[in-house]
Amino acid sequence: MSELTTKRLSLYLRCLEDLAALGVDKVSSREMAERFQLNSSQIRKDLACFGEFGVRGVGYEVSQLRREIETILGLDRTSGVVIMGAGNLGNALADYPGFNSRGFEIVALFDSDPGKIGTTSKQGKPIHGLDELDSVVDEADVELGIVAVPAEAVQGVVDRLVDAGVRAILNFAPLRPVVPDGTRCINVDLKVELESLSFFLSSSRDPADEPEGPVLA
Amino acid sequence: MSELTTKRLSLYLRCLEDLAALGVDKVSSREMAERFQLNSSQIRKDLACFGEFGVRGVGYEVSQLRREIETILGLDRTSGVVIMGAGNLGNALADYPGFNSRGFEIVALFDSDPGKIGTTSKQGKPIHGLDELDSVVDEADVELGIVAVPAEAVQGVVDRLVDAGVRAILNFAPLRPVVPDGTRCINVDLKVELESLSFFLSSSRDPADEPEGPVLA
Repeated sequence: MSELTTKRLSLYLRCLEDLAALGVDKVSSREMAERFQLNSSQIRKDLACFGEFGVRGVGYEVSQLRREIETILGLDRTSGVVIMGAGNLGNALADYPGFNSRGFEIVALFDSDPGKIGTTSKQGKPIHGLDELDSVVDEADVELGIVAVPAEAVQGVVDRLVDAGVRAILNFAPLRPVVPDGTRCINVDLKVELESLSFFLSSSRDPADEPEGPVLA
Repeated sequence: MSELTTKRLSLYLRCLEDLAALGVDKVSSREMAERFQLNSSQIRKDLACFGEFGVRGVGYEVSQLRREIETILGLDRTSGVVIMGAGNLGNALADYPGFNSRGFEIVALFDSDPGKIGTTSKQGKPIHGLDELDSVVDEADVELGIVAVPAEAVQGVVDRLVDAGVRAILNFAPLRPVVPDGTRCINVDLKVELESLSFFLSSSRDPADEPEGPVLA
């Protein structure tokens, strides 16, 4: 299954959570597509990979489909997460609501600054020194690492995570680290989203998009 | 052009920047695909939309292709950006390297906390009160707004941005605001990336992925 498919499953999960919050029990792929501006045949195709969830003409049971997707994404168990770097970004991520809900729990932050070690994030997540990484990863069964350090520190920090046994890494620094086979690293590039908005502004500014003649009211 | 295509153009741009930094002058779609693990026919297809960049068998001029993509994405001019919310996330984004480079400039942050108003981010970006939003947007020709406030404050802040004339919004809060026609809002959901990693861990833990019998060395 491609990374793109797992991202769409995450999106469907978010939609199903919204529907459940609204008290909706059943939904068809067409209704889901309309409500959330998605592609209904893509929804059917994505969900078909995992066996028969829906009944034609009746739709999906919201709660059942939600559980099934959670299981597929491995969210039916909680993964421990550590954050490398306790600057503004590390602290923001430590207290980010989605990173402390179904499937994930931020265990601790790590930083080399002695002034930060021994303190906590606003929501009370402890900040440790790097020398405690191995023991925290072992004791809390940590499987995921988030990297929020400056570019020049990324590779060293990623190597430390890999040595400690962390095999899944989410990197926010503007540099792609090298990881060994069997370890997955996703590099988040927030500028991509800004550039997408820049294209929207640019194309709506383009004179070619304007009516060619005067518009008659 | 779809949001997915603009995201791929951003990715190609990042690759071309890497190649330029390495002193590479020319690159073929096949070389680009191999080096950055992309799909070469997808590259040719994406770039074909914008006319003839490459010469068959010779490849693309790195610097020319880079300029062309920058122009397409509207990065040949600098857009002013304001950040709503000067908490950890707002401060992290204000100083995020990609948000203060080619095409973008963070102009100011806005917050309702009197203790923050009049101070700056670490890199010196000013923090203003909301009553100064209209004048800052007007004076600095701000076109983009980044929302980094708690969920309950999102819609109010987005309405203020729209009223001030900002038509492109990047929202980091875990709630999708309503925006009028002609305004584009991209909702960043960082949990999607974590869920993609959770799927990787879950599927590599799955006994079905293990060899079925003993492996003979």
